[in-house]
Parts: sequence; C-alpha cells; structure tokens
Amino acid sequence: MVSTKPVIFVVEPFGGSIRWHNPSLPLIYWDDYAVTRGDGIFESILIRDGQAANIERHAQRFRTSAEALGLPEPIIESWISATNAAIEEFGDGEGKCTWTYSRGRASTGLPTAWVAIQPIADDVLAQRDNGVRVMLSERGWSFPSELPAKTLNYAATMATLRLARDRGFDDVIFTDPYEGHVLEGATSTVVTVKGDKLRTPYDDTILPGTTQAALFEYAESQGYRCKQKVLDVDYLLDADSVWLVSSIRVAARVRRLGEHKLKAPDNEQEIRSLIDTAMSAN
Amino acid sequence: MVSTKPVIFVVEPFGGSIRWHNPSLPLIYWDDYAVTRGDGIFESILIRDGQAANIERHAQRFRTSAEALGLPEPIIESWISATNAAIEEFGDGEGKCTWTYSRGRASTGLPTAWVAIQPIADDVLAQRDNGVRVMLSERGWSFPSELPAKTLNYAATMATLRLARDRGFDDVIFTDPYEGHVLEGATSTVVTVKGDKLRTPYDDTILPGTTQAALFEYAESQGYRCKQKVLDVDYLLDADSVWLVSSIRVAARVRRLGEHKLKAPDNEQEIRSLIDTAMSAN
Repeated sequence: MVSTKPVIFVVEPFGGSIRWHNPSLPLIYWDDYAVTRGDGIFESILIRDGQAANIERHAQRFRTSAEALGLPEPIIESWISATNAAIEEFGDGEGKCTWTYSRGRASTGLPTAWVAIQPIADDVLAQRDNGVRVMLSERGWSFPSELPAKTLNYAATMATLRLARDRGFDDVIFTDPYEGHVLEGATSTVVTVKGDKLRTPYDDTILPGTTQAALFEYAESQGYRCKQKVLDVDYLLDADSVWLVSSIRVAARVRRLGEHKLKAPDNEQEIRSLIDTAMSAN
Repeated sequence: MVSTKPVIFVVEPFGGSIRWHNPSLPLIYWDDYAVTRGDGIFESILIRDGQAANIERHAQRFRTSAEALGLPEPIIESWISATNAAIEEFGDGEGKCTWTYSRGRASTGLPTAWVAIQPIADDVLAQRDNGVRVMLSERGWSFPSELPAKTLNYAATMATLRLARDRGFDDVIFTDPYEGHVLEGATSTVVTVKGDKLRTPYDDTILPGTTQAALFEYAESQGYRCKQKVLDVDYLLDADSVWLVSSIRVAARVRRLGEHKLKAPDNEQEIRSLIDTAMSAN
C-alpha cells in the first residue's frame, strides 16, 4: 500500500514521550519562534523500503545545527523513535520525512519538536528521470559562515526559485557574487562527473550536504576519485555531467545550465544508480 | 484596565471576514510555509492610546514586502479591521501588534494571515528609560538587496543577539564587513543626533525603517536637519547621542558601543520626546 496521507508525531524535546498528531489540525502556536523568527532547524530525510536513509549523517548535522543555534541538544533516540512510529503508520512507498526543532513558544520557553512524513511530490519524482533546467544566480547572502545550521530561513532562496520558474527553469545554482565560483543548488549540492573524478564545490558558505557525503564515501569504494574543490561555471560546462544531489530528490541531472544545453553522458544510468545505491547503503 | 492577555484575529486573506482565535490553541498547520521555509512577512506596530501608531507607513511596507515575495496583495482594509477588533478586545495600555502574512499551507495553496496584540515585554519597556549596551558585529548576509521585504527570516540575527547577551550587551549594531560602515540594529534603525543634525546610515542592504521615517518627517517640521548618509563607527562615537529607533521600543539611547561608554547628552529628554511625539503624530 502506498500512503498518500501525511503522518505527524510530536517529540517531547527533553526525552520521553512521542505522540501522534492529526495533520488536519493546527499544530503550532502563534508565538512559536519557528513562525515569528524562523528560529529553528530541520532535516529532510528520505524514507525508502521502510528505512530512513542516511540517517546518521542527518542526525549528526541536526545536532550541529542545534548547537549553532543554542538549542538544547536533541535526544536523537526520541527523534528516531518518532521516525520509526511515523514510518509504521505511513506504510510502504517512498516518503519525505522532516524533522523540525524550534526554539518554541515565547510564552513557555520550551522547544517545539516534531517529525512529519509525507508522500514525495510528483514533480520531484519526475525530475529524477527528466533532469532539471538550472538558472545561475549570484547569491549576496551567506548564512552558513555566520550560522552553520540548517535553519528554517529560506525566504530568499524561495524567491530566487520563483524567479527561475518564471523564466522557464526548474532550479537554481548559486554563484559567488565576487569571485563567480559555484556554490550550491537552492536545496541541493552540486556534483560533477568527469571520467572517474567526482567534484563538489568548495566554499565556506556552503552547508555540507549529507547526500553528497554519502555519495563520495560510496563512490570512493567503487574506484571513483572524489574531491571538494573551488569550481567555476566553465568547469561545470566542461564536465561529462552535472548533478544536483539532495536527500529527497536524490539526484537530478542538470540538462540546461543558463543558456547552455548539457548533453546526457553515456554513463548517465551508471551515475544515477551510483548515487541511488549510495543512499541505500547508508 | 491594562490587558495582559494576547488577542488574535485571523484575517481571511482575500478580503471578507475576520475571526477571533483563542491564543491558547494552536493556530498554524505543520505544512505552512511560514514554518517550513520562513516564507512570509510581518510588521510590528505599536498600539498606544487605542490607536495603531504610524499605521500608514507600516501598511505601505507590508504591501511592498508582499509584492517582493509574490504574495497576493494584502487587503489593507481587512488588516485594519482585524487590528481595530483586536485593540477593542485588548483594552487600554500599550501593546505590540504583529501582522503576519505567509504563503500558507502547501496542501491548500492559500495564504495564512493573522493579527496579534500582546503586552509589551518588561525588558523592552525598561530599555526605553535605561538605554542599551550595544555590541558591534560585522554582518555577512544582506537580505534586503536580494529581497526588499520584512520576512520572517531572523535566525542569524537572533543568534547574534544571543552572542551579544552572553557578552553583557543588550543589543547589536551591524557593520558592513568590507567597508566597515554602520548598517542597522538587530531589529531597529540607527539614528544619531549632533547639534540640530539627525543622521541615519545609508546602505542598500538596509530595509527602510518606519519609525525613523516618521521621526525624520516630524523632526524636519521642528527645525532639525535630517539626512540619510554613509556613516562609520567613528561618526557614532563623535555624535551627541546615538539611538536605536523601532516601532515597539520606540527609542533606546545607546549608552555603550563596544568598549566605549557614550555619555548622556544634555538634551536627552528633548530627543526622547521628539521621537515619542513623532510616533503619536502619525
């Protein structure tokens, strides 16, 4: 059975109980800092074959994000319990699991924490097969160097994505406004393939990607040579193939980059299944 | 009677009805983009003497913010109705009114909109009288030039404020990391007074302040000469007095700036009441 309904479990932030929440009822109070200030963190985790993929890397980044925001250390056991309970209710089929942890209500001072699993949107699934047309966009802000955390603050990214869609693109790759080098996708990490070399951009304003990390570890074991490096746009245009990797969409090949069409490489299926297997192996 | 309980009215975003919401019950759904992406805007408006202060400037910025985010144009009449209904229930006494307008639920595609009024926090009231100790902090991100909107994305600002408090400061003034010039407070606009000259920093990454605008208009009518200008930190240290102006706190004099103590000027009360009157005049 493939589930079509979201499932929510609320996590008691200091350990202890989890509880089911009806997704058709409001969950968050008006004075929650997640809403009033975007003062919270999240992780998006792929649910596949009844398992949370790449969970250790997500848990580690979640801990790091919480620490950067000065939130109480998350009790990962509780988050895993809630995730497993949600998977059981969600049933078979791929799902998008989100962990959200906010500073909580101004009036109580207690963090708010919940796990949600929902079906993966059709357009996301389609992009795995069809690839994406990508707009290049300079980025004038850089959270992670100031605040190395996966926060809820994506309004500027969302605005850039809307602009890209208005112009006939599916996604965005951000570049550094001063040096012009490649940063990252809107919600993904850039990975290039050139022969047996896998590259991902280096920049201290990029939040490390969990999918890219899993891919590089697995690909190394398969004989690929993997490295993080400062990359410019020309490097992307010269690569055999360019990919946006992320937890839920997993991998989408860039088939247009700005004005440039990027041809499918001969080994497209090989690379796709390399990334897919890397996610399952973790 | 001074109210101590928050009051919430939900606004139907396409015009029409408003409805009271019990502040002790959750309001926002798990899939609201305000929560998942910080994809929404807000205004904070002072309620004083049963009136929403400086309301036209707030309404104008709210419209501008909505446009920048591609949200449906807010029906200001409905927001004003909701505000007036909330004021009536809130009763006498100063209040902090917040308008929040988000892209809404992913599952419905309808914006979420509400007005809340709550008492002003004691520490905010105290800072009007006592002034603030301010930490200088370089800011490596710059939303407004990318997205000229008052969004819900304040996680990095909040992190800087926590750091400031850990170090014995009350507030933050951000400076440009490249040129070193002064930008703005964490949630306020910087204004300096030197003789009959009022100055506020110019920079294209600063969102225009409604309180500073009201102050400058009124102060001009009282014979002050007001101008927006690129200011460096030395200019602040040389001024007669430095103020952080904002809607709810109205004005707090900077009495320490980094390592420097800033002496109270002879005309402290005069300037304070100039700002206060400017807010009531609008």
